[in-house]
Amino acid sequence: MRLRRRPWIDKAIKDFSDFVYTKNSFDPQQLKGHWQEIFGNDNPIYVELGTGKGRFISQNALLHPNVNFLGLELQQDVIYHAAKKVRELELKNVRLAVFDINHLADLLAFGEAKRFYINFCDPWPKLRHAKRRLTHVNFLAQYKKLLGSGGELFFKTDNRPLFDFSLTQFAEAGCTVRALTYDLHNSSYMEDNIMTEYEKKFSGFGEKINRCEVIF
Amino acid sequence: MRLRRRPWIDKAIKDFSDFVYTKNSFDPQQLKGHWQEIFGNDNPIYVELGTGKGRFISQNALLHPNVNFLGLELQQDVIYHAAKKVRELELKNVRLAVFDINHLADLLAFGEAKRFYINFCDPWPKLRHAKRRLTHVNFLAQYKKLLGSGGELFFKTDNRPLFDFSLTQFAEAGCTVRALTYDLHNSSYMEDNIMTEYEKKFSGFGEKINRCEVIF
Repeated sequence: MRLRRRPWIDKAIKDFSDFVYTKNSFDPQQLKGHWQEIFGNDNPIYVELGTGKGRFISQNALLHPNVNFLGLELQQDVIYHAAKKVRELELKNVRLAVFDINHLADLLAFGEAKRFYINFCDPWPKLRHAKRRLTHVNFLAQYKKLLGSGGELFFKTDNRPLFDFSLTQFAEAGCTVRALTYDLHNSSYMEDNIMTEYEKKFSGFGEKINRCEVIF
Repeated sequence: MRLRRRPWIDKAIKDFSDFVYTKNSFDPQQLKGHWQEIFGNDNPIYVELGTGKGRFISQNALLHPNVNFLGLELQQDVIYHAAKKVRELELKNVRLAVFDINHLADLLAFGEAKRFYINFCDPWPKLRHAKRRLTHVNFLAQYKKLLGSGGELFFKTDNRPLFDFSLTQFAEAGCTVRALTYDLHNSSYMEDNIMTEYEKKFSGFGEKINRCEVIF
């Protein structure tokens, strides 16, 4: 997701510094291994890789107060909108960080998180960019290392070629897939669904949403 | 697969009675639990569900003399061609039976077979016929009961909607999928591939072959 650059956000986002780690303001290695302390409880930690404007993470956190949610997003101008939602809902179980998912192992210790969410990530449609897809087997190997056996990845996309590709990668990585659907909004799995901003918009246009849960 | 009815086959197939169980000539319950004795060794038993004209099973048996192969096919006129191939190759590790896969539990005891093959089965494209698809979750539950945990299903089809449907069913059944490809003939999994008659013909026309291995 790209937004027009808004320089005032760099200042405004400081209002949320009690739960947002802003650009270049923190050392991930200082946080790694300490997330349970940061959240101040023993509840499981779920991480959204690419939080965007934060509808999904904030609604999820509201519904599941006994889970800690960490949202990672590369663009500070985008995560600002997520921060506003978290503040508005007065959520105590959410932390947000401006962070590049390519360096996930700098931020999370082994077993620290139990589940990752990937929602509508960049499909990188060109074959030569396949390794950049967040469900590429190289990423999966990294997720597995961080989550450990039994860890989970919940994945949604409206991009069918990306979804098909991802299924080959899950198989290659030796994961088990469950709750697989090519049309989430017309499936029995819809009941617990929390829509992202993107999903709300494009499913309204009749775009089908693919979803599955992956067990490492 | 449908062939023109050839009444002479009912007689001709009797020439193969040392390894073919012909229509109405045997009681499956008499064979159930005795396949290892029938093959005369302790080698694992792999079963092809829908053997057709037998190219796959005969080539597979030729390549793997330490595996026992049982081919099931509803139509006697079709299995006759498989029998001819098995005889020609002088294969001792193949048995064929005219049999309806809907009654698999009448023919196989728990744990007797280690792997099933389903190659280019009828896609039953109409939604109201979904339960007839050999990869429907009801069939998978039956396969799991027969194969036991760790049992395998190797599945090939050129019908993409059937393949996509099947992946949802594998997930629903709690199976693990590996070696998943939407284009077998242009994949790294091609090396060990044995083509069926149907596959030889239609892949030659550029039809893509979908394949995966399912672990129960």
